[in-house]
Amino acid sequence: MALYALILAGGRGTRFWPRSRASRAKQVLEFLGAGTLIQQTVARLSPVVREERMWVLTSPLLRSEIIRQLPNVPPRQVLAEPAQRNTAPAIGLACHILESLDPRAVVGVFPADHFIARPKPFLTIVRRAFREAAAGHIAIIGIHPRWPETGYGYIEFAPGSGQVRRFVEKPDLATAKRFLRSGRYAWNAGMFFWRPRVFLDALRRHLPKTASLLASLPPFDDRNFTRKLASVFPQCENISVDYAVMEKVRGVVGFAAGDIGWSDVGSWNAVYELLAKDSSGNALKGDVLVLDAAGNYVEAPHKLVALLGVQDLIVVDTPDALLVARRDRAQRVSELVKLLESRRRDLL
Amino acid sequence: MALYALILAGGRGTRFWPRSRASRAKQVLEFLGAGTLIQQTVARLSPVVREERMWVLTSPLLRSEIIRQLPNVPPRQVLAEPAQRNTAPAIGLACHILESLDPRAVVGVFPADHFIARPKPFLTIVRRAFREAAAGHIAIIGIHPRWPETGYGYIEFAPGSGQVRRFVEKPDLATAKRFLRSGRYAWNAGMFFWRPRVFLDALRRHLPKTASLLASLPPFDDRNFTRKLASVFPQCENISVDYAVMEKVRGVVGFAAGDIGWSDVGSWNAVYELLAKDSSGNALKGDVLVLDAAGNYVEAPHKLVALLGVQDLIVVDTPDALLVARRDRAQRVSELVKLLESRRRDLL
Repeated sequence: MALYALILAGGRGTRFWPRSRASRAKQVLEFLGAGTLIQQTVARLSPVVREERMWVLTSPLLRSEIIRQLPNVPPRQVLAEPAQRNTAPAIGLACHILESLDPRAVVGVFPADHFIARPKPFLTIVRRAFREAAAGHIAIIGIHPRWPETGYGYIEFAPGSGQVRRFVEKPDLATAKRFLRSGRYAWNAGMFFWRPRVFLDALRRHLPKTASLLASLPPFDDRNFTRKLASVFPQCENISVDYAVMEKVRGVVGFAAGDIGWSDVGSWNAVYELLAKDSSGNALKGDVLVLDAAGNYVEAPHKLVALLGVQDLIVVDTPDALLVARRDRAQRVSELVKLLESRRRDLL
Repeated sequence: MALYALILAGGRGTRFWPRSRASRAKQVLEFLGAGTLIQQTVARLSPVVREERMWVLTSPLLRSEIIRQLPNVPPRQVLAEPAQRNTAPAIGLACHILESLDPRAVVGVFPADHFIARPKPFLTIVRRAFREAAAGHIAIIGIHPRWPETGYGYIEFAPGSGQVRRFVEKPDLATAKRFLRSGRYAWNAGMFFWRPRVFLDALRRHLPKTASLLASLPPFDDRNFTRKLASVFPQCENISVDYAVMEKVRGVVGFAAGDIGWSDVGSWNAVYELLAKDSSGNALKGDVLVLDAAGNYVEAPHKLVALLGVQDLIVVDTPDALLVARRDRAQRVSELVKLLESRRRDLL
């Protein structure tokens, strides 16, 4: 078997405005330690998957930056999706290509923009998931839940087995608490494993229109491939792989990762939580002067910032835009970006 | 008689950092309406005192900027104090010069950096104070107190007369409340009126060393004046005119100004209080995007600022420094500047 990684890097990541912009989305930014999130994803996986077998799916706006950031990934394997069609068509496209290029291929799907503090135990589980996939199964890695998060999807395991019973999208708080107590649920972190043929069979059954559109594409090295893709891909259904496939297939093998220090890096507050703090709970990047201020996150590479008497704020300064937000409202930064769409498109 | 205005513009105004710097102090900045504070001071007084009879005392760092801002004040009348010696020596110097230049002179002393919303009733009182001074008295304008401020000095009037009984420096809160109730006290806003000879006599009596140092200076148009001043002035006592003279002289005539909309513009919060607000109590200067934020003051001429969920903050952005402060801590900005003195002198 030949292990391939399919790295999904198409997101906009508007919650990281003003640092993230359309052409500098979350996955190509550096938040935690050395390297951007996508560089860290590639480095983390490289003991298991050779970089020349990594493929990236992204938007046209990000492709050249990703090629620049990943010098060991062949540029032709960084695919620009001609339209935003969520994960099902994107993964289908990649599996369609890999199926034709390497019949021994076993594929793992990974988000480009998550953080994992302890890669070693993570890779142990990745190897096991690849083995299940090589044996013809669909495998998934879930994250052992640490709090009753209502913003994630959950995977329910059948009692006493590694079999996935069902997927549950964003539950309400009471349900999430019940999930946590039961011990049978894991967060769905979007990491899937399969042979391309297995996935394409499932796609044909559950999303036949997209499956046949992708089947109509010429071979990847055909000189008409890109042109044909540009006309075919926008016709695919706009749907996630979770809804389109995972919730419908039977016999999914699940692995719950516990102590790997996973984070989806979902907001400025999530970054704050992952960073080292000073004795007042401030996480400060840049030249920051603090007087009687606590619990703040500051990112300001270009100038001195002075905090006086303030608590639990996010302050992110860029050359053309400054964000000052309550830390517990960091999820709502995407609403600010929506407001900007009608006012200052130059800052998106 | 010939009316002269002596505008005191030597302060540093560190509470307005990061906008105020050593060479761009509060008095040469624009906060409220058109013009800088010193330009507004000159414009406000000009119906009573001709601009060619205005004199300015300031620091060497500010002199050229003030000359630029006040094109109708003769540059030779913008005096740079060779050393910071507080108000008594500075006023003594100016009176010494005016005494020799114009024996008809009557002088009013005015801070450069206060704001007065209603100049007309103010000027009515100024004219009366000048008349008292022309008659040989020392006169003072106080401000009818609107709250028990502990940061100001107070003037006590003798009951039923315009005579000043005594001066009280920054009282505690209980005392300030008592002053307010009694109706006999006014805030000392640093506005004094006298003939130069009257002031110099008082100085000779109560601050004889400084008085005789100033008396040793050659005439103002002597070519050695500036050189001699540079050696004499630093030897003068470092003391305010309130302590050195006003608290000691008898027979001061006081005027209490009521409804003139006076502010000492003492902090960013004072500026906020004077500005128009939107329906959420935000005072926003610049391109500011607001989501669920109230009671904030933003000054950011160079970039977009987005506020999310925050309340009662001061946000002041400049090209090389950014302040984020709780509005009710605005007085402590000067402490930040002290911290900077040991770290980033380039930002002072």
